[in-house]
Amino acid sequence: MTNVEPRLSRGLRDLLPDQMLARQQMIDTIRGVYELYGFVPLNTPAIEFLDVLSGSAGQEAQQSIFRVSNPENEALGLRFDLTVPLARVIAQYRELPRPFRRYQVSPVWRADKPDKGRFREFTQFDLDSVGTESEIADTEIIAGMCDTLTALKVGPHLVRFSSRSILNLLLKFAGIDEQQSVDVFRVLDKLDKAGIEKVRLELMQGYKDESGDTIRGLGLSQEQVTRIERFLNVKADSRRDVVTRVRDLFSSVEGSKDLIDVVERISNHLYALGYGDDRVSLDLSIARGLAYYTGPVFEAILLDAPQFGSVFGGGRYDNLVMRFLGEAIPAVGASIGVDRLLAALTHLGKTGQQRSTARVLVTNMDPALAEDYLAMTWELRRAGIPTEFYIGTAKGPGKQLKYADQYEIPIALLYGSNEKTRGIVTVKDMTVGREKAKAVGDRKEWLAARPGQIAVPRGELVPAIQRLLGEIEKV
Amino acid sequence: MTNVEPRLSRGLRDLLPDQMLARQQMIDTIRGVYELYGFVPLNTPAIEFLDVLSGSAGQEAQQSIFRVSNPENEALGLRFDLTVPLARVIAQYRELPRPFRRYQVSPVWRADKPDKGRFREFTQFDLDSVGTESEIADTEIIAGMCDTLTALKVGPHLVRFSSRSILNLLLKFAGIDEQQSVDVFRVLDKLDKAGIEKVRLELMQGYKDESGDTIRGLGLSQEQVTRIERFLNVKADSRRDVVTRVRDLFSSVEGSKDLIDVVERISNHLYALGYGDDRVSLDLSIARGLAYYTGPVFEAILLDAPQFGSVFGGGRYDNLVMRFLGEAIPAVGASIGVDRLLAALTHLGKTGQQRSTARVLVTNMDPALAEDYLAMTWELRRAGIPTEFYIGTAKGPGKQLKYADQYEIPIALLYGSNEKTRGIVTVKDMTVGREKAKAVGDRKEWLAARPGQIAVPRGELVPAIQRLLGEIEKV
Repeated sequence: MTNVEPRLSRGLRDLLPDQMLARQQMIDTIRGVYELYGFVPLNTPAIEFLDVLSGSAGQEAQQSIFRVSNPENEALGLRFDLTVPLARVIAQYRELPRPFRRYQVSPVWRADKPDKGRFREFTQFDLDSVGTESEIADTEIIAGMCDTLTALKVGPHLVRFSSRSILNLLLKFAGIDEQQSVDVFRVLDKLDKAGIEKVRLELMQGYKDESGDTIRGLGLSQEQVTRIERFLNVKADSRRDVVTRVRDLFSSVEGSKDLIDVVERISNHLYALGYGDDRVSLDLSIARGLAYYTGPVFEAILLDAPQFGSVFGGGRYDNLVMRFLGEAIPAVGASIGVDRLLAALTHLGKTGQQRSTARVLVTNMDPALAEDYLAMTWELRRAGIPTEFYIGTAKGPGKQLKYADQYEIPIALLYGSNEKTRGIVTVKDMTVGREKAKAVGDRKEWLAARPGQIAVPRGELVPAIQRLLGEIEKV
Repeated sequence: MTNVEPRLSRGLRDLLPDQMLARQQMIDTIRGVYELYGFVPLNTPAIEFLDVLSGSAGQEAQQSIFRVSNPENEALGLRFDLTVPLARVIAQYRELPRPFRRYQVSPVWRADKPDKGRFREFTQFDLDSVGTESEIADTEIIAGMCDTLTALKVGPHLVRFSSRSILNLLLKFAGIDEQQSVDVFRVLDKLDKAGIEKVRLELMQGYKDESGDTIRGLGLSQEQVTRIERFLNVKADSRRDVVTRVRDLFSSVEGSKDLIDVVERISNHLYALGYGDDRVSLDLSIARGLAYYTGPVFEAILLDAPQFGSVFGGGRYDNLVMRFLGEAIPAVGASIGVDRLLAALTHLGKTGQQRSTARVLVTNMDPALAEDYLAMTWELRRAGIPTEFYIGTAKGPGKQLKYADQYEIPIALLYGSNEKTRGIVTVKDMTVGREKAKAVGDRKEWLAARPGQIAVPRGELVPAIQRLLGEIEKV
């Protein structure tokens, strides 16, 4: 019999315990925020009918669907996002009360070309309010993004928002027809990378790039481009000022008042709730997923890790279930790329650092004392202290303490016949000497104040461990 | 454009918010127990190579694998359990410290014929200790099963355990060869359903059943069957007595002492830790997955819902990674059928009853007061009280209160210009009049003591809600 090689297909990966612990902590925190907001959890199966999945997907998304076959040979695939299943649920269970404010945290699958940090199975955390046109739904999603990032202790962050409606006003203002708009926005999207000079040329007559390739121009007039530039220059430190300026700029455009009013109301709600300009900015240059969104759009960036881009984004989209019901239902939502956010948090050193759930390892020094070890283990567990009793094959304390180090368990108990006679337990602070301890200012002084191991009367084990854990967690 | 029908393929289902809330609460509780035990989380992708999946599966399991195709046309499938991925992980990451005590809670897929309560995607909660022969690992899994069921407040429950080794002793004792053993155990497994008379006949000469079909006998002798029956009669209320009796019975069988010693040690550890005969019984008649397990086996039943069968089961299996490494690694584990356990808990009325996360609905009686509603909503959220502000299309309070009822939100706030002038908020206890309230002994008296709604000074909203929630949760 030949051995099977243990391996995964490309783009797939395992999450080993240290990664999982950080991820679970992060997801639990996000869940906590949205449950406080009264969002309710939903779960849908991984497998959907292909026609359910593919209608709404772009060409690219359709190609990336993993096909699945069942005994009935139906056309099935793995979901590639959580929005399509939500739309199906809304259409399928007409009795669900509306607004339906749900969150779902689940894996999705895309058979894209795998790349560094890009996987074929990844987790999304989505939240959506379905069945409401109220801008308070949008407000609440933005506020929730701020609360989430605060709860995750990511450090300075900024939620930027804008609205597809404002971009529609720009089209009118600059005299650009609907047909040309997709191209114009595509070019504007290059602003950060290419700079205003090249964008200006591409909007008008085109140019030859460094490698000599011709970049065809869109043929806009000088006047049109000037108007676009005036829009791009509507920037200010406060949302209030941005609103005032964009009102001025578009004062001649029909219908501008009502559309800008919506944006202003969201901004004012946020001010009233304590989400100031330092946390939420009105940035008219963002233009997420234009084909998809119909109203406000928003995204969050971590100011200390801008290279990770938007870790959280969303907007209003009102055609969610059109494909199923032939009827528009308003909806607004956001999605967190769990993996990208976790990568950013890890980069910032803001993730949970635990490699194990256990805080105490009871070593197994003498098999004759098994009942004592078990009694200690359960005493600690029953006091709510996560505890592991070493049941591996290593005999001496050396290798067992190495095991505690591998899992970064902070406390180890040593108990042999000597300790038993004296009625004590030797409690070893494993964090002394580990990397983490080096963070302390005066290491020498700190180490001197920490004996590394102490003898604790057997009857006082639980309070002694509670005290020591308190000290360790202060570091 | 034709509408797509919103639907799922057979055997698949959505978990709507009320089901998800109960399930999450259950899973969080189980996770809490095993994290206290120092088990660490693992996650593996849904998609595995077919040769990784199928080698260890029986013929039946192999047929039930959902095939998946990727752009590289590799032979892939969805995992059908969590044990095979664990084995792959152990073989693939040789550097993982051992023992490796992990839990994983994930969906698995089987393309079986769907049936009532039987789905093609379902969730398993698995825990395993890999790389240890210590019977303390087995002890800890049994103790954890008890702690889990206690934490879930399932009411009276019993963990039954036995050992494959004891059954091997039976084979020797009754002079049954290895080849015949599978058939013998298959017949013994019918004991509960068919009764001892038919089992006895089938072990010997066979018989004709009610419909006239011939049930072929295995041809055992009277003496062999007598010996088997003597084994089946080894029953007692205490584990201690079962050990004594089985020792007596098998005293003549070579090697019986050591094998029974292992079982006795597990039993004694459990006694010492407070898991008495009322919670864990030694029941030699259980014979879970004989082809698979190599040592102790265990299962849990809910005494108030025995019809759900074993909700939790496992055992020792030492050939986990043989297929990958050509080497035996000892392991012991258990698996919880999350869906079956949840169904049993629901049947017993022991699941969380919440249909929403929100505890308070701030109704939207007057759009002019939006800022007030938002301020109240955020005050409550910031005090840790899950709160929803009604943002749906219903205008009057009647329909909005109906929405609170649909989600079973216990408290609703009413606040109009009248309340604003008086500086108060009307707080409505929505549980008065709901089904739940009927459980209270003297309903009339109870209702008289509950005004249903109270006027609370605006400035005292948070403490008033905290008080009322406390009262409501006491019911």
